[in-house]
Amino acid sequence: MTESQSADLPLRDELKGQEPYGAPQLTVRAMLNVNETTYDVPSEVVDAITQEVRSAAQTLNRYPDREFTTLRRKLAAYLTGESGADIEAPQIWAGNGSNEVMQHILQAFAGPGRSVMSFPPTYSMYPLYAQGVYSRYIAGTRSANFTQDPHDVATQIRERRPHVVILCSPNNPTGTALSLEVVEAAYEAALESATMVVVDEAYGEFRQPGTPSALTMLADRPRLIVTRTMSKAFALAGGRLGYLAAAPAVTDALRLVRLPYHLSAITQAAANAALDNAQTLMANVQRIKQQRDRLVTELTAMGLHPYPSDANFVLFGGLQDAHAAWQHLLDDGILIREVAIEGHLRVTAGTETETTDFLDSLRSHLNG
Amino acid sequence: MTESQSADLPLRDELKGQEPYGAPQLTVRAMLNVNETTYDVPSEVVDAITQEVRSAAQTLNRYPDREFTTLRRKLAAYLTGESGADIEAPQIWAGNGSNEVMQHILQAFAGPGRSVMSFPPTYSMYPLYAQGVYSRYIAGTRSANFTQDPHDVATQIRERRPHVVILCSPNNPTGTALSLEVVEAAYEAALESATMVVVDEAYGEFRQPGTPSALTMLADRPRLIVTRTMSKAFALAGGRLGYLAAAPAVTDALRLVRLPYHLSAITQAAANAALDNAQTLMANVQRIKQQRDRLVTELTAMGLHPYPSDANFVLFGGLQDAHAAWQHLLDDGILIREVAIEGHLRVTAGTETETTDFLDSLRSHLNG
Repeated sequence: MTESQSADLPLRDELKGQEPYGAPQLTVRAMLNVNETTYDVPSEVVDAITQEVRSAAQTLNRYPDREFTTLRRKLAAYLTGESGADIEAPQIWAGNGSNEVMQHILQAFAGPGRSVMSFPPTYSMYPLYAQGVYSRYIAGTRSANFTQDPHDVATQIRERRPHVVILCSPNNPTGTALSLEVVEAAYEAALESATMVVVDEAYGEFRQPGTPSALTMLADRPRLIVTRTMSKAFALAGGRLGYLAAAPAVTDALRLVRLPYHLSAITQAAANAALDNAQTLMANVQRIKQQRDRLVTELTAMGLHPYPSDANFVLFGGLQDAHAAWQHLLDDGILIREVAIEGHLRVTAGTETETTDFLDSLRSHLNG
Repeated sequence: MTESQSADLPLRDELKGQEPYGAPQLTVRAMLNVNETTYDVPSEVVDAITQEVRSAAQTLNRYPDREFTTLRRKLAAYLTGESGADIEAPQIWAGNGSNEVMQHILQAFAGPGRSVMSFPPTYSMYPLYAQGVYSRYIAGTRSANFTQDPHDVATQIRERRPHVVILCSPNNPTGTALSLEVVEAAYEAALESATMVVVDEAYGEFRQPGTPSALTMLADRPRLIVTRTMSKAFALAGGRLGYLAAAPAVTDALRLVRLPYHLSAITQAAANAALDNAQTLMANVQRIKQQRDRLVTELTAMGLHPYPSDANFVLFGGLQDAHAAWQHLLDDGILIREVAIEGHLRVTAGTETETTDFLDSLRSHLNG
């Protein structure tokens, strides 16, 4: 916002001079900057969404089901199948994107006079979520290679005593999933300080084989929350459906802060249709994981330093001038993500063609 | 929430023991309690929504247009036609229901350490919006017949100096629109105390002929915000689309507090389709206004005391036992709204048949 625009308005002091958050929305031949699924939505899924929405549209004059009953049931069944944990509908909460789900968590358990902790480099929205509910943000630390160690995480939680601690697994932008030992250690430390533990598994479906989900830890851990999204594996970034699983007492608490009817009948219908077609959508997840593993292999062969990835993207270092590489790629019609780590960039695993185009362009830059 | 459920969670103190907000969602033959349009969505509108959503579904793998550019243009054009004011797209903001729009306003201009004022009896969500952003809520007062007088409103604003003042016009639950003299007086007083003035015109399309909208006052008043919704006149309660018009500097400020991509591509598509069919939908508005005026006439003839209404509902007093009347109607399959005013009830103007059924049932109760 320009000074002249804001000057006359009684805006809150901490917002003055700020810029709105948001990655560039450019249309180029390969958009690999925001970890979307780059495959087209399969036509049978488009048909299913259309049919469910047509049905919902007939009663749009009425307010939606405030409890999104059908959607919660379908999400619970999906998570049970995906994780092997036994998840029931009363454990499910959802919102317009993980953004809103995280906002509800922080409204109930953080807010003014309380604090929110995460461990940078991690998802850059976490400090903004904290700011949005007027909480203090605490930046924890990681090891030099960006991993997290159970003892160190527990020690930091015991020292800082945040009201909510967010673990991101697989972590964005580094790509690596946490072992459940880290989550366990964080939870034990959190119990001592009345801290809620959130494990953000936005990229959970892309984790390497044999890596368990924190969903398997929910039983008997009432202060643990696992968040998920339909934006990534379900290819539904445009549909804005984030969700979580936790103890039913947690979802009861979130009912106190949600604005009534926050999930539209159309959003519920579209998400239901996508869940009915989960198997079709997950076929692309396998393809994306192949390209993700290929990126790690080929970037290594190019002399760069990719990090092990459980996500649909790869962070890599070893660049002398990351911005120059980013600009070269963009000039070539390939948009990837600049991150706040020197010499590093983050690239989404796209289709085979996009991956090839990205690798070829980067190779030509490095050899140029 | 039960005590046992919340006991173990580090919930914020002010939320402990609270109950979630929400009117009963019952399926009976006449649902006249939440001021929905009770006419079915016209089939050509269902078709148009379906077609737009099918188109949007094909790229749901991508994040939506964060700026909802097309929707803002269509909303501006609609408001210009509806109010006679010249409204441009940069003046428009929208969210998932007026709830979210109001939340954005209060996040930017109220929040902790600030205050929000409205004038009960009025929309019961206003104190909850204030609570949601940790602001102090100030309850102003009205005349004995629930009207508002320019001098009195200005005096109360000068005395209480709220950071945001909300005027509801037509007011819910009383139904009456404010004269622009009241808005003007409130605005002049607000200028002295760095107060933003919000005029909530959720029911604006139902106002009596010759009653101007506060949209006509926006030019040169940068601290005035007029909110609208597609839930009522557009019969889109299930679609959750609230919006506002204000100075572009205000929408710039709201960009600082909105969560990125808050409006899904499907929500944008459905709202665009409804706006393209505004004329079809507004035909029902005329029918509803006729039933609304009929309610006032017939309730008066029954010896009750309805208030003049510019909305799609009527508040009426003169009942000896409002709850008994409400229960009789519900037993008869007619759900209307209990309000926090003794001897009063609020009824939505529905179809001709629903209105007849309501009046017949109430008559039989009074004569019983």
